[in-house]
Amino acid sequence: MSKNLTKRSEDYSKWYNELVVKADLAENSAVRGCMVIKPYGYAIWEKMQAELDRMFKETGHQNAYFPLFIPKSFFSKEASHVDGFAKECAVVTHYRLRTAADGKTIEVDPDAKLEEELIVRPTSETIIWNTYKGWIQSYRDLPLLINQWANVVRWEMRTRLFLRTAEFLWQEGHTAHATETEAVAEAEQMMNVYADFAQNFMAIPVIKGIKTANERFAGAIETYCIEALMQDGKALQAGTSHFLGQNFAKAFDVKFANKEGKQDYVWATSWGVSTRLMGALVMTHSDDNGLVLPPNLAPIQVVIVPIYKGDEQFEAISAEAKQLMARLRKLGITVKYDDRDTHKPGFKFAEYELKGVPVRVAIGPNDLANGTFEVARRDTLTKETVISADIVSHISDLLEEMQAALFNKALNFRDSHITEVNTFDEFKDVLENKTGFISAHWDGTTATEEKIKELTKATIRCIALDRKEEAGTCVYTGAPSVGRVLFAKAY
Amino acid sequence: MSKNLTKRSEDYSKWYNELVVKADLAENSAVRGCMVIKPYGYAIWEKMQAELDRMFKETGHQNAYFPLFIPKSFFSKEASHVDGFAKECAVVTHYRLRTAADGKTIEVDPDAKLEEELIVRPTSETIIWNTYKGWIQSYRDLPLLINQWANVVRWEMRTRLFLRTAEFLWQEGHTAHATETEAVAEAEQMMNVYADFAQNFMAIPVIKGIKTANERFAGAIETYCIEALMQDGKALQAGTSHFLGQNFAKAFDVKFANKEGKQDYVWATSWGVSTRLMGALVMTHSDDNGLVLPPNLAPIQVVIVPIYKGDEQFEAISAEAKQLMARLRKLGITVKYDDRDTHKPGFKFAEYELKGVPVRVAIGPNDLANGTFEVARRDTLTKETVISADIVSHISDLLEEMQAALFNKALNFRDSHITEVNTFDEFKDVLENKTGFISAHWDGTTATEEKIKELTKATIRCIALDRKEEAGTCVYTGAPSVGRVLFAKAY
Repeated sequence: MSKNLTKRSEDYSKWYNELVVKADLAENSAVRGCMVIKPYGYAIWEKMQAELDRMFKETGHQNAYFPLFIPKSFFSKEASHVDGFAKECAVVTHYRLRTAADGKTIEVDPDAKLEEELIVRPTSETIIWNTYKGWIQSYRDLPLLINQWANVVRWEMRTRLFLRTAEFLWQEGHTAHATETEAVAEAEQMMNVYADFAQNFMAIPVIKGIKTANERFAGAIETYCIEALMQDGKALQAGTSHFLGQNFAKAFDVKFANKEGKQDYVWATSWGVSTRLMGALVMTHSDDNGLVLPPNLAPIQVVIVPIYKGDEQFEAISAEAKQLMARLRKLGITVKYDDRDTHKPGFKFAEYELKGVPVRVAIGPNDLANGTFEVARRDTLTKETVISADIVSHISDLLEEMQAALFNKALNFRDSHITEVNTFDEFKDVLENKTGFISAHWDGTTATEEKIKELTKATIRCIALDRKEEAGTCVYTGAPSVGRVLFAKAY
Repeated sequence: MSKNLTKRSEDYSKWYNELVVKADLAENSAVRGCMVIKPYGYAIWEKMQAELDRMFKETGHQNAYFPLFIPKSFFSKEASHVDGFAKECAVVTHYRLRTAADGKTIEVDPDAKLEEELIVRPTSETIIWNTYKGWIQSYRDLPLLINQWANVVRWEMRTRLFLRTAEFLWQEGHTAHATETEAVAEAEQMMNVYADFAQNFMAIPVIKGIKTANERFAGAIETYCIEALMQDGKALQAGTSHFLGQNFAKAFDVKFANKEGKQDYVWATSWGVSTRLMGALVMTHSDDNGLVLPPNLAPIQVVIVPIYKGDEQFEAISAEAKQLMARLRKLGITVKYDDRDTHKPGFKFAEYELKGVPVRVAIGPNDLANGTFEVARRDTLTKETVISADIVSHISDLLEEMQAALFNKALNFRDSHITEVNTFDEFKDVLENKTGFISAHWDGTTATEEKIKELTKATIRCIALDRKEEAGTCVYTGAPSVGRVLFAKAY
């Protein structure tokens, strides 16, 4: 295996693209903008799914499944939703193919045109709220707390593996509530679930905030988000949770009888995270040698590699390795013993480094004689020799330590890349030279936000929920401001 | 809740359609032929998925994800596959919508026509084998054992919830092997995994067999199947596993270097089961009172219903109920305590009967005084009084007993509905009056198979793997036959 990975400092974007492919996470497919998620990448996604699914169920949600297709007319029903979502979509117009006149190729059967075109879902608010109309009559039917794991399609012109693909996998929660207060609390709760997941499971520090009107989800009253910072100083929106007010209930006429018997429209939320998180994972932790995976997300947490000459050594070393594997597995640790005789230890070391396996254990003849193991950790690339009596607890502790260390490292990087600026020159200077989040006063208008974007490509990532009240003047217009917002260039 | 469920004896088909909707499993959506899988139905599907996924991984398979869309031209590459799969499909022709001249509705943007139409996958052999070309170079890359959980679309004209829907959920395994022997063994192994799953997890007895040439998967050399029998005497194909030979490898030019360095085409299999299994589950076990679920698949295995007057009784009974719930949960049993005060016990009993909850426990004031519980089992609709000291082990044993009892009941029904016939009059008589599988000699020709289908609507469900060698004469033509095959009307 030849790594030949571009260095991050040379070309961060190229490094990312190469790493995703070389580490067997994903690759481009024959279909423009659609990716193939390879088994190693999918195994990481499955771990994310399992943990998120557990968290959703723990907070009272159930899974369901709604149609892939949405009738075109549904998108006209919620006015602001049309512009945001019904533009760059895959449109199904026909339902049959036929053999062409050449007898070999196939062509679309012109007689099989749909009366109404179907849109491949870019998000499912419309089809779900059309369904909820039949499910909700009374306050007893509320809250309705539903999540869907699904594929969605948005016809993106410029795509990048995981970060922006025409088809991607995600979960979308869609809830219905009797009161505004409950719906807002749900939207906030799910933002908190996402933040908890990102930080404690993915080891990615995030800032919780709300989006400006300009960056809000199409059809939302308020969009909550978690924003992460990548190693190149660009921000990445890692999850959003929307308070939708009564917009979709009104568009699809979903009313309920409250306890007093009065009819009212239902209050809604929706929230989602996607395979984009795979991109965030790679770009937060990995290095010039390859992937670095937090132990929680590693499909293989520990790999054991034997170093031997001849069958006799191999057998003695294998016995030790297998015993260690069994003891680690008892603790719920995922272990692979790589005893392939088709590849040399050096090749294997490079392969597992590239694939981000957190802990590598090597056993050679000296180790066998001394009752030791060589333990290498992926994040720091350091090695130590551990005696047999301590090995299991050592590895178990090490995995926990690495999970925490990766979070702290990312947190330090993030915190050192939030810069307060008070002039537009400083603003541009930080963006040019230091990158990261820029904390600046803003006059609260969309016009200013768009002007700054036009001049610098930086957007307002969020108004942090924990920002302090601080009177100031807008970094661009000088108009009054009640507090700082976070700008950054973003994925 | 009003059940008003049509009786099976009155109209089996109507009973099924009503039950699926009333038991909250699924419903039709606004999109023709596409269903909504409701939370209760989806929870059952999740249990199927989890068990199948475990079985696939135990047999060495990994999950991956391939694109939803397939370029139209791919379907022309494997000749027999075209006719079987590229006909009734959803075809994406455009990638953008725009606001219409009225400023309100939206329409397809005629300038956004795709150069090549994309087909929403009806099955993924073509896109996957196109991908495998890049993954397989040498025998070291084999076997490649991959599964995908996905949605697929086949534009069916007549649809029925779960049994035949335009969009459905499934898993599709796609494996690549160095030798024919290995590929055949894989196809057989997966048929056995499906049979094991159907029988031991779903409590549905199945017959393992191979399909005739006529009923084979488009592009397969051999199709293995498991066939189940529904309560109305119609057969249902519950899963298929295909040995694809080198057909797809040749169509997509997937070669490998064997150990001797010689190039050869790869050998393939594919295998799948779908949400159709939900239909099989309902039609195998349920009765005129509603769903009957095997404990393995029940989202709620035990429900506890309190019967009380006044707060004081309620509190004492709730304390007992919660203690029982905690003890059962420790054993991994899923328990719901339904203490809603908005519904009476009789209403709750009817609801859980309809939804097929295996065990219902009621606690009233007399039970409290006597230290007893009333335990009702869903399959036999029988009740007994159990003393407190025995309750946990009683319920735990009962769940196991019910799982076995449901299988045995279905097995007896199935076995009593396999009829050997030797004349075509007998054949028609059984089909008309007794229904079920008809075991008959057949001359091995597609012409006879099609003629019988035309005359009786019965098809050859399979050639059972365990059929005995028995010379005979075809029930229709009188031509020689080497063994009996199983005919039936089928879903």
